[in-house]
Amino acid sequence: MDFRSKKLINDPNDVVTEFIEGLVETYPRLQYLDGFPKVKVVLRADISAATYDKVAVISGGGSGHEPAHAGFVGEGMLTAAICGDVFASPPVDSILAGIRAVSGSMGCLLIVKNYTGDRLNFGLAAEQAKSEGYAVEMVIVGDDCALPPPRGIAGRRGLAGTIFVHKVAGAAAAAGLSLTEVAAEAKQASEMVGTMGVALSVCTLPGQVTPDRLGPGKMELGLGIHGEPGAAVADLQPVDIMVSHVLKQILSTETNYVPITRGSRIVLMVNGLGATPLMELMIAAGKAVPVLQLEHGLAVDRVYTGSFMTSLDMAGFSITVMKAGQKILNRLDAPTKAPNWPVGADGRPPVKIPVPLPQSRLTKNDESSSRPEQLSPQGYILEMVIEAAATAVINLRDCLNEWDSKVGDGDCGSTMFRGASAILEDMKKYYPLNDPAETIKETGSSIRKVMGGTSGILYDIFFKAAYAQLKADCNPVVTPLHWANALEAAIAAVSKYGGASAGYRTLLDALIPASSVLKEKLTAGEDPVDAFVVSAEAAVAGAESTKSMQAQVGRSSYVSADILASVPDPGAMAAASWYRAAALAVKDKYHAS
Amino acid sequence: MDFRSKKLINDPNDVVTEFIEGLVETYPRLQYLDGFPKVKVVLRADISAATYDKVAVISGGGSGHEPAHAGFVGEGMLTAAICGDVFASPPVDSILAGIRAVSGSMGCLLIVKNYTGDRLNFGLAAEQAKSEGYAVEMVIVGDDCALPPPRGIAGRRGLAGTIFVHKVAGAAAAAGLSLTEVAAEAKQASEMVGTMGVALSVCTLPGQVTPDRLGPGKMELGLGIHGEPGAAVADLQPVDIMVSHVLKQILSTETNYVPITRGSRIVLMVNGLGATPLMELMIAAGKAVPVLQLEHGLAVDRVYTGSFMTSLDMAGFSITVMKAGQKILNRLDAPTKAPNWPVGADGRPPVKIPVPLPQSRLTKNDESSSRPEQLSPQGYILEMVIEAAATAVINLRDCLNEWDSKVGDGDCGSTMFRGASAILEDMKKYYPLNDPAETIKETGSSIRKVMGGTSGILYDIFFKAAYAQLKADCNPVVTPLHWANALEAAIAAVSKYGGASAGYRTLLDALIPASSVLKEKLTAGEDPVDAFVVSAEAAVAGAESTKSMQAQVGRSSYVSADILASVPDPGAMAAASWYRAAALAVKDKYHAS
Repeated sequence: MDFRSKKLINDPNDVVTEFIEGLVETYPRLQYLDGFPKVKVVLRADISAATYDKVAVISGGGSGHEPAHAGFVGEGMLTAAICGDVFASPPVDSILAGIRAVSGSMGCLLIVKNYTGDRLNFGLAAEQAKSEGYAVEMVIVGDDCALPPPRGIAGRRGLAGTIFVHKVAGAAAAAGLSLTEVAAEAKQASEMVGTMGVALSVCTLPGQVTPDRLGPGKMELGLGIHGEPGAAVADLQPVDIMVSHVLKQILSTETNYVPITRGSRIVLMVNGLGATPLMELMIAAGKAVPVLQLEHGLAVDRVYTGSFMTSLDMAGFSITVMKAGQKILNRLDAPTKAPNWPVGADGRPPVKIPVPLPQSRLTKNDESSSRPEQLSPQGYILEMVIEAAATAVINLRDCLNEWDSKVGDGDCGSTMFRGASAILEDMKKYYPLNDPAETIKETGSSIRKVMGGTSGILYDIFFKAAYAQLKADCNPVVTPLHWANALEAAIAAVSKYGGASAGYRTLLDALIPASSVLKEKLTAGEDPVDAFVVSAEAAVAGAESTKSMQAQVGRSSYVSADILASVPDPGAMAAASWYRAAALAVKDKYHAS
Repeated sequence: MDFRSKKLINDPNDVVTEFIEGLVETYPRLQYLDGFPKVKVVLRADISAATYDKVAVISGGGSGHEPAHAGFVGEGMLTAAICGDVFASPPVDSILAGIRAVSGSMGCLLIVKNYTGDRLNFGLAAEQAKSEGYAVEMVIVGDDCALPPPRGIAGRRGLAGTIFVHKVAGAAAAAGLSLTEVAAEAKQASEMVGTMGVALSVCTLPGQVTPDRLGPGKMELGLGIHGEPGAAVADLQPVDIMVSHVLKQILSTETNYVPITRGSRIVLMVNGLGATPLMELMIAAGKAVPVLQLEHGLAVDRVYTGSFMTSLDMAGFSITVMKAGQKILNRLDAPTKAPNWPVGADGRPPVKIPVPLPQSRLTKNDESSSRPEQLSPQGYILEMVIEAAATAVINLRDCLNEWDSKVGDGDCGSTMFRGASAILEDMKKYYPLNDPAETIKETGSSIRKVMGGTSGILYDIFFKAAYAQLKADCNPVVTPLHWANALEAAIAAVSKYGGASAGYRTLLDALIPASSVLKEKLTAGEDPVDAFVVSAEAAVAGAESTKSMQAQVGRSSYVSADILASVPDPGAMAAASWYRAAALAVKDKYHAS
């Protein structure tokens, strides 16, 4: 099916010009030559031909391969990039302007991908520049390994391997080498490198209709980077199989394209073709390394994964393998300010050993806690309180479900029932009841084990935060004020992580009033038991008041105000219910004793 | 139309695991925690919690946003990234493992995008870590500007602006600040940043079928990064209009999402959503800067263009604007080893002035050359020789066309005729005939003015290379050996840039034998005129011999050997013809004189 591709462009004729405008806005160290946009030359902003004392390294060609080549301009890599129109070689005059703009006394090296148009235009510019007295050398890169070897150079296209040649030459030039030496290193690098690509889609020229070449479920092997058909069409395969196939073809001893044999040290590039997400490129890279090492017996010293030499909006990737001794490695590792040369790929350690998984700092963990043989007075009260609170929630199951069926998904009661039941069960088995802080922590864990979704995790956060506060207060005996502080911290954590505040129609509308009243009464020196009971009344009133609130978070936020007005928030009612039961249990205990 | 998206993956369930494997192969400074692949934590390979003396900065969330977040792990940015499954928040245990693995005595900051799942899971892990004695802070980023302001935090999603918060926090931590200070800077940054996206396509979950939500010619404005629908659907527009619209919405004084007013200093991020080519992002960036500066009155201090926070294979972009004073700028500019933080965007110069276009170093250029009043003896001979050579080509027009109609596109004679005629015409007007080198150069220019395609540029290269050699020999009087050297250099240039050698069935098959014979005879001390004539015979023989050659380059390479055998290469015949005419003219002159 032909279709018009969607692109972020304006006039299709202006894409290269507007790309360069965005590029120099993004990278202050890049600049374009005057004569722009007719002359499309991107060059380092910090140098001038009159004073430049290193070999200038120049590349370029048709556009549509971004970031190549302009994105590789920068100290330590290209000195200038000459941009043609999309997939069209740049005119001789632009190349010549670029040569004149950056070539100082050391001359310049042109690195040209092996396409007839580029060879001729760069070639003529080189000859013209020589006739003007410039020292010019040219290296042609043909790294394509997709087609059977022809007798001449014409058959091997220049592909992503050209980027490696840029880097080697750029680093050699930055090191102060002569033009002859820089050209020799670039030529040597070009002879060490092989590339092959796989396309999942065809690229679309700006303003054109996407050609219907590749059907669904098909891929092209050995493609060019100008939309020219690949060497073969095949059924789409898992990427592991694609990678193995491509590597086998690059390293074939029949075609003998690259001088790589078992035991060679190599570097690898996994290159996206324009519309390939990084995740997919990394998956390909993750496979290519072991295949190279185990199946081909090669040492992979560096891996470069990203989109370096693209083909407009083509989906797919190419793999480049370059034989690299220490000298080439040093060139690849040398610093550069070119914006699109990958960062952080240098200095490969020989083996990866996973970082050991650290254990919890807590000496006491879930498994080791146990119910004490003998409960302390405080432990006894705690057990009573927890039992009362959990039982209140259990008894409220049907009410909660009914309310929730009107404003949510109807399972609030059942969910809370599961949590409360788990607490009662686990408490009997292993809650360390004589240690209130640890017991509170276990409460959260019990809840989260059986309560899925938001409410389970929020209650776990609630109890974990209370625990941390109790531990911070760090007193073997927990006073009423400690409990009040823990409640405050727990509410703050739920509010922070859950995103709700007072008035949002959540459990906080029960707990926030309770917490305020409790803190106020205790600070005023009132009887702690009375303070708990009064604060519980505030919790109940707060929960009831949710009827008049518009929901801000969760499922209820999609329910109309009319319906909400007849129903309190079930989460708030559940919270009020367990809080009140706990307070009454405390009251019973102390007024009884 | 629903369709199965093509992806470079293996099992859809393994994409995150295999992404991480590729990532750590690519970046030796990154590592994963033991427990992988169940625990998916990427962390700096160079630190250990036991000895780490800076605040650890941790982020993460669902995967599918690569390079976020793992690609931003590195000195000066994130200390660890916790990876969930695609679009799914990571489990609490993994987050906790990450916290334990990198948090030293200074504690850790969690930077979390504002999604309920992430808030709760990171929140619970934070509380758990606190309960283990770790110092933990959490900053939630909600930079989405697509939806009308809700009353709570829940409505603003975390988008690409989060990357800025990572960088600010990472730089503050690297500077040795305390947890409280790092958290405060991160929070402040999160309040300064706004983002809005435009999608041209819907993303496809690995292994799923692409949903048919966006029709052809449509785009979504204000999208999320998890495939959730955008705030509005609109007809596709030129990118300039999209950019203006998005910026207006981010900077709206009605929603007041970001505290940016006219005169503010800001930084800009243009972010690709996964399948957007860099060319298109740069086009958007190139427009966004002037719109921000001219329409909104803002100073744009930095531009970051690339794919940082993606949504699988979605085509489209988001724009992020952050208010940034000098303090934030310093944090953004601070060095980092995080592989995917953009390089080279720091240090923006205030104004861009194009680098002046350098002029040719030659004092004499095409326009200024002129035919001498009086020809020197050498100039007189040169004129005769050029006239004879050009006339020979002119006379051969029909023959050349006939041959070419059998092995090419039939216009070789006409093309060569145009070139030869232009030479005769220009020579009368302005060839500086007393200067042989300059005259040879003009010859090339005359040819290229009227001869399109490969042959025109190759002949220009031929004459430019000859000129450079004549100039290099640098003798006011050109000797026969100088001419032989020039011929040799010209042939070498054509061979190098055109990619042909002897036996490729091109003009070189006439010129190479001629050059060899000429050089040999001259070096042997034979009479130069005889040497020219004998070498011309070699040229003709060479051209005739092309009948038996298989073409290697150009159109003839597609013609069968049977047909080729009956026809010589027209280019070779043309070359032999002008060479022979030149030699005979020299002979006539000298034997006549």
